[in-house]
Amino acid sequence: MKIAEKTLNYVKSLTAQSIAVAKNGHTGSCLGASAIMLALFKDHYNFDVSDTDFLNRDRFILSAGHISPLYYTMLSLFGFDVSLQDLKDLRKMGSKTPAYAEYRVTDGVESTTGLQGQGVANAVGSAIAQAMLAERFNSVGFPIINHYTYCLVGDGDLMEGCVQEACSLAGTLSLNKLILLYDSNDATMDGTLSASNRESVARKFKAMGWNVIRCLKGNRYSSCSKAIALAKRSLKPTIVIFKTTIGIGTSKEGTSSIHSAVLTEEELKRFNKSLEVFENFYVPNDVRDWCMATTRKGKLLHEQWNQDLAVYATSNPVLYREFNSFFDKKKLDIEKFARNSYKWEGLSGRELNNVVLNELSQKFSAIVGGNADCGLITKSNIENAGYFSTANRRGKNIHFGSREQAMAGICNGIALYEDFYPFASTTLAYASYMMSAIRLSAIMKLNTMYMFTSDSIKIGQESVANLPIEQLACLRSVVGLNVYRPCDGNELLAGYQTHFEKGGPTAFVLSQERMPSVEGKYEQALQGGYILVPAKANADIVIYASGSEVGLALKVAESLKKQYDVSVVSMPCTQIFDKQSDSYKAKVMQKSAKLQVAIEASNDNIWYKYVGSDGLVVSVDNYAKCGNGEEVYKSFGFDEKEIVRKIIKKLAN
Amino acid sequence: MKIAEKTLNYVKSLTAQSIAVAKNGHTGSCLGASAIMLALFKDHYNFDVSDTDFLNRDRFILSAGHISPLYYTMLSLFGFDVSLQDLKDLRKMGSKTPAYAEYRVTDGVESTTGLQGQGVANAVGSAIAQAMLAERFNSVGFPIINHYTYCLVGDGDLMEGCVQEACSLAGTLSLNKLILLYDSNDATMDGTLSASNRESVARKFKAMGWNVIRCLKGNRYSSCSKAIALAKRSLKPTIVIFKTTIGIGTSKEGTSSIHSAVLTEEELKRFNKSLEVFENFYVPNDVRDWCMATTRKGKLLHEQWNQDLAVYATSNPVLYREFNSFFDKKKLDIEKFARNSYKWEGLSGRELNNVVLNELSQKFSAIVGGNADCGLITKSNIENAGYFSTANRRGKNIHFGSREQAMAGICNGIALYEDFYPFASTTLAYASYMMSAIRLSAIMKLNTMYMFTSDSIKIGQESVANLPIEQLACLRSVVGLNVYRPCDGNELLAGYQTHFEKGGPTAFVLSQERMPSVEGKYEQALQGGYILVPAKANADIVIYASGSEVGLALKVAESLKKQYDVSVVSMPCTQIFDKQSDSYKAKVMQKSAKLQVAIEASNDNIWYKYVGSDGLVVSVDNYAKCGNGEEVYKSFGFDEKEIVRKIIKKLAN
Repeated sequence: MKIAEKTLNYVKSLTAQSIAVAKNGHTGSCLGASAIMLALFKDHYNFDVSDTDFLNRDRFILSAGHISPLYYTMLSLFGFDVSLQDLKDLRKMGSKTPAYAEYRVTDGVESTTGLQGQGVANAVGSAIAQAMLAERFNSVGFPIINHYTYCLVGDGDLMEGCVQEACSLAGTLSLNKLILLYDSNDATMDGTLSASNRESVARKFKAMGWNVIRCLKGNRYSSCSKAIALAKRSLKPTIVIFKTTIGIGTSKEGTSSIHSAVLTEEELKRFNKSLEVFENFYVPNDVRDWCMATTRKGKLLHEQWNQDLAVYATSNPVLYREFNSFFDKKKLDIEKFARNSYKWEGLSGRELNNVVLNELSQKFSAIVGGNADCGLITKSNIENAGYFSTANRRGKNIHFGSREQAMAGICNGIALYEDFYPFASTTLAYASYMMSAIRLSAIMKLNTMYMFTSDSIKIGQESVANLPIEQLACLRSVVGLNVYRPCDGNELLAGYQTHFEKGGPTAFVLSQERMPSVEGKYEQALQGGYILVPAKANADIVIYASGSEVGLALKVAESLKKQYDVSVVSMPCTQIFDKQSDSYKAKVMQKSAKLQVAIEASNDNIWYKYVGSDGLVVSVDNYAKCGNGEEVYKSFGFDEKEIVRKIIKKLAN
Repeated sequence: MKIAEKTLNYVKSLTAQSIAVAKNGHTGSCLGASAIMLALFKDHYNFDVSDTDFLNRDRFILSAGHISPLYYTMLSLFGFDVSLQDLKDLRKMGSKTPAYAEYRVTDGVESTTGLQGQGVANAVGSAIAQAMLAERFNSVGFPIINHYTYCLVGDGDLMEGCVQEACSLAGTLSLNKLILLYDSNDATMDGTLSASNRESVARKFKAMGWNVIRCLKGNRYSSCSKAIALAKRSLKPTIVIFKTTIGIGTSKEGTSSIHSAVLTEEELKRFNKSLEVFENFYVPNDVRDWCMATTRKGKLLHEQWNQDLAVYATSNPVLYREFNSFFDKKKLDIEKFARNSYKWEGLSGRELNNVVLNELSQKFSAIVGGNADCGLITKSNIENAGYFSTANRRGKNIHFGSREQAMAGICNGIALYEDFYPFASTTLAYASYMMSAIRLSAIMKLNTMYMFTSDSIKIGQESVANLPIEQLACLRSVVGLNVYRPCDGNELLAGYQTHFEKGGPTAFVLSQERMPSVEGKYEQALQGGYILVPAKANADIVIYASGSEVGLALKVAESLKKQYDVSVVSMPCTQIFDKQSDSYKAKVMQKSAKLQVAIEASNDNIWYKYVGSDGLVVSVDNYAKCGNGEEVYKSFGFDEKEIVRKIIKKLAN
């Protein structure tokens, strides 16, 4: 038996074994995709196990996350920090080999996938980032950034809208270093693929501007390897369609019944015998050596790259300096900007953000991002920085089109790539399209910045579906996402400072209309919430508000001040506030007050956490009627007199 | 000038006028799509203004919601209850003509759109519902349900993942009565379309199994009408690509600068002159008559249909009886089922739901729906009811494939169609893909049922992204969505009873694993929350819980009962509970207790609303580690002893 065939047998056996030990997993696709993965790792994937963060490594993203056990087998055979014991520990709590591969958990893993569809968007982001750096820093004879991004997808991924959005954009942008490896086995969890999907993937991808390669022998290592070699020469993004057999070599091969199945002891024994594998969790030396030859080659290629870079540094000193400082965010100095007391007055939230975004972008090149065809509304364009396109790889703005989900997933991919600080911008209502990607930003602790404008019913003349009500509650429920809803530029700067100092992700929630005239406090806003108006002695009433409602809260406080001692708390970021010391929180919350009030044009129940079950929450508890913004706002009770009346009534009870 | 041309001129002028009065709107696409809309309304769209709910009417859904002003003009000209004054009141609060057309607000409007992408999914749902009824009730010579579903889309819609998902499924299902009218003008809000999208829509739709018709003269009424006539003869779903000129007739025609623009007084005057329109908000008699001829024809066709139905009733008495009672939900009698005390014990949430769903489906045919390729997990299949497909239009289950967003939007479309009760089912983590459609279910008060299983971190061995944490908070933030997380079958039945009695939408949140043994109370669960374990006298401690955590709460209460008087509140649905009388709520909440505790494996801040800012909330505030379910659950503190310890500590403070 040839060594390639023998290795493939061991790959299959080890993977099936680990799933059998875990008693849970997807044997079918893991076996079906094994030849593709072996071809990729053995002959194409460029990595250095001694430095898995090496900048010019290939990126590999496993969008079909249920194939993780196979992925772990590959990582183990090719010398990543995954041992045979780790394979045995598949799906155990605290192991290096969780059910689905996770970023920051397993050596070599580039993204947390498992939620179908997200991985492809991440891969598109990676390819965009690569193209940006290549254009900026490659010079004649020194293509220092010229790697590929590979992404393995299954039938499920390709049905996801997020993937369709991302691939449509990848075709539009001619991302030729992007290669999708499509494990096409015509079976899904619930049955044959044709029951739910009869489209021609090949023709669809061609229509989207992709190069399409068919590999009919997707179960054969050599055929797979040749197909990938071909893909690397394309001027367009490529999808290689590998026809494979789900659960190959098992008694249920080719049927959906093996999709989510585990081999019994009996079946496993028979399966191993057919593969001529007679030991458990064992790798023969010739198999190990064959794999490690590639691993050594990867290390050598990295050394060669280092040497090339040294020459590059001498021949391109200016470029090299720029290259070395590209991701250096110390240049930002947001504190200094804050000390300069910019005149924010009279600006809308989105205009405040435009000022800050552009100021920071000038100092720090690694801020890139864009809009979902609403730059005119969000005003989050980097001026004079161009648009990223096939012809202009230097552009820092990205026209995402009406593809909100892919925009978020792609920004995650850019953030995963290196120390980029990507931003995704649209109106707040569209955050509902992006929740899955936003969660993954938080799960992976990425530096993605979300810039949402049109942040409340106050926008008025809109589709009722575009008047945001639930979005603040949804965003604030994402663990690890800082949601900053600033009342002015100083608070917004505090949000940016927190983002760049402590890491992301962050959602900036910004008004479309001019903000009421309020002067927020930068230093205090770094605590997430703070007393904007202190009580004279002991507060009778504490009023919490965020964003545009802070100005309203101030007016309410002013109206009440003759009768009551009123304190106003500005709360741009509840998540940061919650992390402060108990004593700081107690000082701000002033619990001895007779009444706690929260004012926010959302329907977020989070305010009860501060005002208590007896507090008064002025919020939106109904779908807005479209109309003049101020009228709509007032009709929901966001009116000074109305709120004063409610407060006095509540105090009388 | 021919009457058609004259009418088209008035359509354009009236629409531009109303936008000018509102001082806000999308003049560009409204003018560009005017010939398409006139052709549709004049020659194809089958409606009866005297009975706009007529079952066999054509359905028209305006997915490109920003074209609403044009839509209102059409409704007005063709005799719907939209007056010229209403056109003048465009975008005014409380008017019949809000910024974007809304279901239940404007006569003739079939869906609330404006959030890009959703309308197409609704249209696919409508076409599925039509096909289901046609198969069931049409008989030779009596095609009583044979109408079309039309949907107008723009470039923005077609980039949305939701649309790609829906259209891929429509092609797979050969929904030949579905006709997409694509206003292809190559301009988007932020610039030319090619900046963000270069794909071939025609080839993409062909690859998805669609019939594609090009109409190069999309600005001409007669060409548009011929193209639509052709589309109606297709055996596949059809997209008609109308090449149009955005802002046609204005000085900015063909450019994106007219996309979201309003004509100035000067521009409007010049524009009207070029159209030979010399009055404001006026319709000449010949134009009115020409349109009303179609309106009268629609009424006659409806009368003919009524006559045909009478003959059908005589010749197909059995079928006619079935037809007449198809949407009669009185047959359900959920209360009776509840009284029968089914033995729920030992079942998981998804198994409880399987029992209830199948019991109800047997009695009531209008329950249809399906899974996003996870029926094996959700167990929400209607047994022995078949799968809806090209070959089997009678199937009540739908294989949605891995298309969660479209699934939800399609179910909304089915719910909009007639009194269907559609269900969309997947695991809870995927609810994050569906938030936009779920919001629209609530905005439109549709009867869509969401069935989410794998409802907490307790599922354990999963992708960290698939372990739901935020989803309950997100769902509960949707105003008007009832979220039922039952602790047993009795509570689940209460959720179904509420859904069918009071209307939807409802999300059923169900465990994947076996539920702890608890006997919930049907009658009380109808109140949303109730005392499951009363205090002996006055409660020292009140513990709230939902779903799987109710069993845990009972154990905690048992442990504490020697020292404290403990009451346990089961809260399957906070939304329903919040609507109860103050006195009922006070009785349940027992505020005189020393400590209020909530236990739920989510991170929903809603619990502070009940336990107050000094209460104890046992929840999930971190991303789960994958591993054995029970282990993961305990590691987050969902453990009897751990909670007892926390409670005692909190009481000591």
